[in-house]
Amino acid sequence: MTRFALTLEFDGGPFMGLQRQDHGPSVQQAVEDAAFAITGEKVTMHSAGRTDSGVHALAMRSHVDIEKPFDPFRLMEALNAKMRPDPVAVTACEVVAADWHARFSCIGRRYQYRIRNRRAPLTLTKGQEWQIARPLDEQAMHRAAQFLVGRHDFTTFRSAHCQAKDPLKTLDRLDVRREGDLVLVEADARSFLHHQVRSMVGTLALVGLGQWREEQVAQALAARDRQALGLNAPAEGLYFVEAIYPAG
Amino acid sequence: MTRFALTLEFDGGPFMGLQRQDHGPSVQQAVEDAAFAITGEKVTMHSAGRTDSGVHALAMRSHVDIEKPFDPFRLMEALNAKMRPDPVAVTACEVVAADWHARFSCIGRRYQYRIRNRRAPLTLTKGQEWQIARPLDEQAMHRAAQFLVGRHDFTTFRSAHCQAKDPLKTLDRLDVRREGDLVLVEADARSFLHHQVRSMVGTLALVGLGQWREEQVAQALAARDRQALGLNAPAEGLYFVEAIYPAG
Repeated sequence: MTRFALTLEFDGGPFMGLQRQDHGPSVQQAVEDAAFAITGEKVTMHSAGRTDSGVHALAMRSHVDIEKPFDPFRLMEALNAKMRPDPVAVTACEVVAADWHARFSCIGRRYQYRIRNRRAPLTLTKGQEWQIARPLDEQAMHRAAQFLVGRHDFTTFRSAHCQAKDPLKTLDRLDVRREGDLVLVEADARSFLHHQVRSMVGTLALVGLGQWREEQVAQALAARDRQALGLNAPAEGLYFVEAIYPAG
Repeated sequence: MTRFALTLEFDGGPFMGLQRQDHGPSVQQAVEDAAFAITGEKVTMHSAGRTDSGVHALAMRSHVDIEKPFDPFRLMEALNAKMRPDPVAVTACEVVAADWHARFSCIGRRYQYRIRNRRAPLTLTKGQEWQIARPLDEQAMHRAAQFLVGRHDFTTFRSAHCQAKDPLKTLDRLDVRREGDLVLVEADARSFLHHQVRSMVGTLALVGLGQWREEQVAQALAARDRQALGLNAPAEGLYFVEAIYPAG
């Protein structure tokens, strides 16, 4: 048995999410079906994050265990060939130790959220950004974001379907910056609650639009109540960017 | 009568090209049909470039003449509303002098060509980049590109369907650079022949792959013969980036 770590890039648009679902296509199913077609083995893929329908990944980390011997480069090529034309690609594949786990060994996760702040509808990036027509004050958003950095009870910013036992999480970084008409939010943490990034971004957008004062974000956090949430940002602007593992 | 200059962004994928065609949808038809729906006037759109099927634009410049009085912001909003869900957007609209012409007043055009240099298939940028699996030497490509800069007879790099009277063109800049696994080619000229950028990029790719020596690009140019062309790069990696007009 060999454990292969996979780096996955995918367009979340046509999927019901990363995790296997009964009611539609998933990234997990795409990879597992391709692995079965190649190896004849029923594998289970584990991943650093469990992204929702419509959420994209630039470099999700996952692993699968395969009995038959395979060269990692050959496995990557075969998986990519089998998955066409699904918008999932294995961009890297390596053999890892049997106790390395894409989810449980992961000590850091980075998400990026892309807001296109302009009047005109999206063309080339349709389904890949959240369009907000009215001008956003990204500096106010960045200042308000700093209320969320640190160790907090993030109940306000958590989906009703979140399965985590503990709403206490440490948010290491939440930066907002502008590049032309693109407003980028980057979030780093060891782990996130379900919908946490989208909930934080949606609420910061209200600050950026001038509908919320910056301090209201701190009040919403302190409320520890989903009803205090400003807005949940749509899935299509969210990207899983990086999973971090201990060196060695 | 008022002349409106439009800045257009579009995904060229679903169109037969910018110019109106008998056999399928075009960007020109999308804009003209929207203008007709709004104004009741049959307008003709003129544009800085005439991009092929599959070629994209970040900021094409065009103009239309409209008899009814319109505020340019309102016209832009109405055009964008009517063109949904076609992937064309008017990102700017302004009133210009009656003798300003999107095509004939234009004194500079900039194109960008995007090559994704990796094994893995494209996901998020499918139809928006040319994927080349084998490693490209972008520095050799840049050196070879310099043979093409200047005033030359570009017959070798011209489509058989090119309607320009004169194959003599002045190429002001042709730069190749790498950003991670993205190899970017940027071309500046007052005007280009049909397929010129794609023909230059395709031929430079052969140099990047080591199939052509750098000097062969100079020899192909000197041949003034379409048969001497290395390769025509696919439309999907090409972007019309900027049209330049005299100040004032």
